[in-house]
Amino acid sequence: MYQNRKLYEKYITQEQVELIHEYSLKILEEVGIAIENDYALEVFKKHGASVEGQVVRIPRNVVMEAIANVPGEFTVHGLEKSVTIGEKYDPVNTGPSVPTMIQDFKNGGSYRDSMLPDVVNYYKLQETSPVVNIAMNSCTDTPDLDKSADDYFTPQLALSLKSVTKPIYQVHCVNTENYKKTDLIQANRNVLNFQKQFYDEWDKYVSLTNCCVLSPLAIGADVAAALIGCALENQPVIPISCSMTNLTSPPSLAGTITHDNATLLSAITLVQLIQPGLGCIYGTVTTPTDMRTIQLAIGSPESYLMMMGSIAMARFYGFPVRSGVGGSNSFDLDYQAGVDAFMMLEPGFMGKTDFMLNSVGSYGTYNLGSPEKMVLDEQTILYQKRINEGLNVTAETIMFDNIKEIGPRGSYLQGRTPKIYRKEHFLPLLFNRDGGKPGALMESKGTLIERASKEVEKRYEAYKAPDLTNRQKELLNTYLPEGYKF
Amino acid sequence: MYQNRKLYEKYITQEQVELIHEYSLKILEEVGIAIENDYALEVFKKHGASVEGQVVRIPRNVVMEAIANVPGEFTVHGLEKSVTIGEKYDPVNTGPSVPTMIQDFKNGGSYRDSMLPDVVNYYKLQETSPVVNIAMNSCTDTPDLDKSADDYFTPQLALSLKSVTKPIYQVHCVNTENYKKTDLIQANRNVLNFQKQFYDEWDKYVSLTNCCVLSPLAIGADVAAALIGCALENQPVIPISCSMTNLTSPPSLAGTITHDNATLLSAITLVQLIQPGLGCIYGTVTTPTDMRTIQLAIGSPESYLMMMGSIAMARFYGFPVRSGVGGSNSFDLDYQAGVDAFMMLEPGFMGKTDFMLNSVGSYGTYNLGSPEKMVLDEQTILYQKRINEGLNVTAETIMFDNIKEIGPRGSYLQGRTPKIYRKEHFLPLLFNRDGGKPGALMESKGTLIERASKEVEKRYEAYKAPDLTNRQKELLNTYLPEGYKF
Repeated sequence: MYQNRKLYEKYITQEQVELIHEYSLKILEEVGIAIENDYALEVFKKHGASVEGQVVRIPRNVVMEAIANVPGEFTVHGLEKSVTIGEKYDPVNTGPSVPTMIQDFKNGGSYRDSMLPDVVNYYKLQETSPVVNIAMNSCTDTPDLDKSADDYFTPQLALSLKSVTKPIYQVHCVNTENYKKTDLIQANRNVLNFQKQFYDEWDKYVSLTNCCVLSPLAIGADVAAALIGCALENQPVIPISCSMTNLTSPPSLAGTITHDNATLLSAITLVQLIQPGLGCIYGTVTTPTDMRTIQLAIGSPESYLMMMGSIAMARFYGFPVRSGVGGSNSFDLDYQAGVDAFMMLEPGFMGKTDFMLNSVGSYGTYNLGSPEKMVLDEQTILYQKRINEGLNVTAETIMFDNIKEIGPRGSYLQGRTPKIYRKEHFLPLLFNRDGGKPGALMESKGTLIERASKEVEKRYEAYKAPDLTNRQKELLNTYLPEGYKF
Repeated sequence: MYQNRKLYEKYITQEQVELIHEYSLKILEEVGIAIENDYALEVFKKHGASVEGQVVRIPRNVVMEAIANVPGEFTVHGLEKSVTIGEKYDPVNTGPSVPTMIQDFKNGGSYRDSMLPDVVNYYKLQETSPVVNIAMNSCTDTPDLDKSADDYFTPQLALSLKSVTKPIYQVHCVNTENYKKTDLIQANRNVLNFQKQFYDEWDKYVSLTNCCVLSPLAIGADVAAALIGCALENQPVIPISCSMTNLTSPPSLAGTITHDNATLLSAITLVQLIQPGLGCIYGTVTTPTDMRTIQLAIGSPESYLMMMGSIAMARFYGFPVRSGVGGSNSFDLDYQAGVDAFMMLEPGFMGKTDFMLNSVGSYGTYNLGSPEKMVLDEQTILYQKRINEGLNVTAETIMFDNIKEIGPRGSYLQGRTPKIYRKEHFLPLLFNRDGGKPGALMESKGTLIERASKEVEKRYEAYKAPDLTNRQKELLNTYLPEGYKF
């Protein structure tokens, strides 16, 4: 059990949560949501919503009845491991979406496009990670991937199924570029059935799909199809908002939280109308816009605050919630990347959420990554998990007898290290804890990034490929990219 | 007014606070505190404490009556500026103690001893800082300081008085090395009188002195003399604990908090018995010991938690409280330095405390610093201050009419940037917020440290020396080091 310290209570009151809720319903009733999919529009119409062009206006009772079916927790199965997502469990973490660019510390920290070997390395690191418990299949469409086929989505998914025993998270939906064989709803169903077939599991959840809604107040064609495909195949989804203040959402933080809440409620309502009781996570990684550059500001106090507000909303509805991210706007693995990682992971681990995407390894405004940042972010996460464990203050742990025995000016350093020390102290990897002259330390230990690079190599060596059956290997071989087949 | 969000309430309960309080009084009554000063022992004896050798055992009523006199807030005056320290005010921040070593980014980030020109530069940065409101006179005894005189403390103090208009904080006490002219209590009185004379202020607080107690359960000779000297001169003090778990304090976090609380209460009791109502701040920057290296772990989850516990104790007594530090164990200005800064400043700004030492610029386990880290830590602090401002959720800030007007798929980017955006968004210096290819960004913007170096130069240029009277200049000239006189 992971303690929910409800840090968000320090930033938003119950009355404010209810006010946001009321205005969200008012938006859904009076303003509406644009949904780029006829099937979705039909579903809403059938349940009593008004549809005008692509804009759906949803009565409050339709929303409230539909969302009442969202389960408080659910389990996603992988090859050997499964994860349960819900308030009382450890936050479930994914690794990073393989970024389009890699900062290559084997080449002095220069930048280059990521390639399929990087994709495989990312799976190795996720599989061996002490904090990642669901692996990200990110379908980055790297330059070395053969894109001549009608379907170059499934080959990338096959590569993830080949590489990890942990459950799989789909961050990029099937779209009309990477899956041309059929319409998008059917494409999503095909992909999910491929996973069911691989695991030979037909009634359990074997996939979890990221469904990024469109701000303001819309659900795009790709994502609507993903939501519907998942609902029809009875596989769970994470509708997620990634608004930008004063650009795709209101200029105020409260307005943005409310806007996001309305949009997310519409997506959750849609899947619940199709498949009542479907596993759903309420997600947000909304950021402010930095108006000097018109860029999303991933590492920002405003994002921290909006995440806290959104977590409170999800808890109000009783939904599992996704937020918190180990990202940064920095284009270098530097002090800013550290500050941003700690700040943006905090809503996840101390806030607390149930699911986190990109919890390790991402920077450069989601476009850049490095294996080194992955292993460093893991340490930051272990710090936050230790903080969340909290203080244990009892008559016993105060240790009065010990204090009396040692007395003034005595030394506590005696004999074996006490059990309570070992229980209460987390000792990090990689981060320096040595003392002495900094020049000598630099000489003997190297830079933090050099230490991280060594750890990455150790992890590649420790990685073991999953033990697959011949049936599974054959199935994957149908799709795996050339050079990556069994 | 700075909002106290009482984040510590998420980590410790009122019952636990009371338990620590009870055991602390039991320690003071049954175990006692060693105090290396006869004057202090006499004071305690006179008020009914039992004294055995240097160990004082203090009855609970003596403690409770004495500490009841601690004022909830007080003001310290400088040349042109003053600061008020207390729960309802902004956390008051000092700059760093000038470290013994500088990471010199003009020389590729190599390390060297700090010198008097560095001391002056640190004053310039503190004087021009948007977050530092009390300047640290750190008396680092740099290698280029003339140490042949009987008193080489006052020359360093004179240099700080020459350099800043902000009030002065004394981090290093007078000791038998740097002040040989007289006994230590009188030495402290002389130094404080020098400051009174400089400001020509005889009834106000014109100094604030760091008084580091000795763990376990002791007050060393230098610090006892400082406490007594300040009390006799009616100048405020910060008794501060810097214990190390399993070395100078119990192996448990709860035991360490209790140990520290008892020791701090003894120091506060001492000054209140001498000067009832004296301004006092309850301070702690206690850390865990990393038993692998037997080093203090400044950047650590356990330190975060113990700080939260100690803040709760100070609030229980109604004392102003010092905690939170922008420090790190890292010997490089890197990702770890960023993570540690954010983590260790959080108890200060979001915890919340009233006073912070070393809030910017410190790393390398307090032995290392750089001007570049000072300006970067300032940004981290401004992030935390923004977070602490919180969310403003009202019917007005939800902006329903705006959401309705823009509607689905519209753009909020219209005309002038709205007032509410400008009010709610903090835009950082130095931290990257630009988008685009990382290689191009690195080329056009340089590394974070390069940007910080430029900012440092700007700040040196913006610095203006204080406007002093001839009387003040003459007074300082009696003491200022050669080469630094008017």
